[in-house]
Amino acid sequence: MNLTESLTWRYATKRMTDQKVSEKDLNTIFESISLSPSAFGLQPFRVVVTEKKELLQEIFEKSCPQVVVQQCSHLLIFKAFKNISDEHRESYLQLMKEKRNVTDDYIETYRQKIQRVQNSSEINTFEWAIRQAYIALGFAMIAAAELGIDSTPIEGFNPKALNELLHIDTSKEETAVLLTLGYRDEANDHLANKPKLRKPLDELIEKI
Amino acid sequence: MNLTESLTWRYATKRMTDQKVSEKDLNTIFESISLSPSAFGLQPFRVVVTEKKELLQEIFEKSCPQVVVQQCSHLLIFKAFKNISDEHRESYLQLMKEKRNVTDDYIETYRQKIQRVQNSSEINTFEWAIRQAYIALGFAMIAAAELGIDSTPIEGFNPKALNELLHIDTSKEETAVLLTLGYRDEANDHLANKPKLRKPLDELIEKI
Repeated sequence: MNLTESLTWRYATKRMTDQKVSEKDLNTIFESISLSPSAFGLQPFRVVVTEKKELLQEIFEKSCPQVVVQQCSHLLIFKAFKNISDEHRESYLQLMKEKRNVTDDYIETYRQKIQRVQNSSEINTFEWAIRQAYIALGFAMIAAAELGIDSTPIEGFNPKALNELLHIDTSKEETAVLLTLGYRDEANDHLANKPKLRKPLDELIEKI
Repeated sequence: MNLTESLTWRYATKRMTDQKVSEKDLNTIFESISLSPSAFGLQPFRVVVTEKKELLQEIFEKSCPQVVVQQCSHLLIFKAFKNISDEHRESYLQLMKEKRNVTDDYIETYRQKIQRVQNSSEINTFEWAIRQAYIALGFAMIAAAELGIDSTPIEGFNPKALNELLHIDTSKEETAVLLTLGYRDEANDHLANKPKLRKPLDELIEKI
């Protein structure tokens, strides 16, 4: 399938079979998350992955009562950073210094750019980090679709309950969005063969 | 190229040649934006596209002083909705009624779900709409990369100036993020052949 076909094939899967996603395919999806771009390259998010049925059941009960959470092969929990720590910034600049042939002046200018974001009262760092996570979320969905793997992005969960359940240090990061991975149960998913609903392209895209 | 190769090939292009992106390729990219998923399927964003050199120059001068804005073949301006209007909701429910074989009860339940978002004091609709736009931004970048087209996502612009320049009714929507499309000018782009900087996969992905 080409990309348009893959994107047409994919849909927010509501019911999944018990088929497992392979380690190889999972790694391709993780790689696409890693390769997704982020502002300044800072990757201000992390992803928790689980396939443990007891944990999925607990998440279903306490945070996200959608059946597909119980049924999926793997659940990806995107956590966005609440702030950019100096340590995170310096670790990134160190990587830049090692991997790219750039001058100390370049590094210092880059440091100052990041510091302006760190110190800005206009930027909500958590929201900004969530946006970066959403790019990665999209990349993961496409990587999955191209492998014939279904996925369901989920915003409708209780983040507080999930933060607690996962013992997340919410001074540093919080759960932002979920993605199930698995295989559609066509017979039991009322959405499996429904046409996509999209506004006409000329309402979405305006050429000027 | 497979997806991983395309994602490795792409980078935030800083210098572009004057080669134009074809209408056919543009339409594939627009299609991927249209096919990108959004919460409830509401597509709470729109995209303005321009290739007019005078307008690009004006955007460069007043809102976004990055050379690639002057050089790109096309600039995509993602605008996110400030709120979900009743009209937008009903137009979507009408589409659902026409295209899918669902009952009136189903439509009514769906209406109530959307209304809960519309009436929620906890949800910042603009932020929520921006997140949906970022998924589409990512889809557009991948569609471009798979066609061998370069792109640059840009957050660092002055949205107020751009809203004014485009005469946007900011009670309804605002500019959220930009994406240039075009072809890399390898000889003049210092980033063209630099290795990607990514944290180790096991720092990004945590299996539990």
